Amino acid sequence: MNPPVICIVGKNKSMKSMIMQELISKLKARGLKVGALKYHKHGDFEIDIKGKDTWKYANAGADTVAISSPMKFAVIKKASGEPEIDDIIQNHFADCDIVLADGFTFSEKPRIIVTESEGDIEVFKKGCKVLAVIDQNVGSKKLSELTSTVLKFWDIEKGKN
Amino acid sequence: MNPPVICIVGKNKSMKSMIMQELISKLKARGLKVGALKYHKHGDFEIDIKGKDTWKYANAGADTVAISSPMKFAVIKKASGEPEIDDIIQNHFADCDIVLADGFTFSEKPRIIVTESEGDIEVFKKGCKVLAVIDQNVGSKKLSELTSTVLKFWDIEKGKN
Repeated sequence: MNPPVICIVGKNKSMKSMIMQELISKLKARGLKVGALKYHKHGDFEIDIKGKDTWKYANAGADTVAISSPMKFAVIKKASGEPEIDDIIQNHFADCDIVLADGFTFSEKPRIIVTESEGDIEVFKKGCKVLAVIDQNVGSKKLSELTSTVLKFWDIEKGKN
Repeated sequence: MNPPVICIVGKNKSMKSMIMQELISKLKARGLKVGALKYHKHGDFEIDIKGKDTWKYANAGADTVAISSPMKFAVIKKASGEPEIDDIIQNHFADCDIVLADGFTFSEKPRIIVTESEGDIEVFKKGCKVLAVIDQNVGSKKLSELTSTVLKFWDIEKGKN
């Protein structure tokens, strides 16, 4: 079975990123195998380092470039069209216990909403299950509660499989 | 069926990389969907850009990090143990027409050997099918011949599927 996915959604980019990092390290500390997925809406993005062989091969026109070592594996592919989150989870995250997705607001996954104002809740809810609403001025106590909420959700989802 | 794979093997790192780039752009010009795979023997490698969100998520401990846009998809995973080239091809290159692998000398795939000296041929042959032997001082005429050799091999392999 695919691992449960939670989307972190909201307007505030740096807050979403901070909450992702916080949850990743807290869930890792609990021994979970954690996946992180980011949606990048602006088309192309840079992920490789200029001048590296893999960068050169992509630059020469390769459609898929991968690099493999006994410690790490990476692949960069050309894509066409909006990504399907379930396909990505099945193909690349099946070995994880849980996946946190930064963005993917258009998916129907359960979500944590990071708000700048009251109105954001309706904008980002989109009929989906909302696990938590976090104000952008979140403190460390609230972040601890958030980890507990995520772990509780994970426990219930795990039980379903 | 998986696409045919050709390994580019030899001691001379920059020559292998140059031949990879040359073949990728020539095969792309023929309209092929080309994959490039690199074996990195020194354990860990850097592929993400420091400070980017994906880099932060890996740094926070995520086991798998992916980023997805309508134009591109990338995934970076922790690995344990030597990679299996056939698994990689099946999981990540199935949509390519041909894959060029930089290294993977230990695989049993057909290969192009880049030589610094005569002795290199025996070292890198390893009982595998050798499509071509290229001297490190290769000229542009030889590179054109090499492209023809690869296309001929691809044509035969395609016929088998």
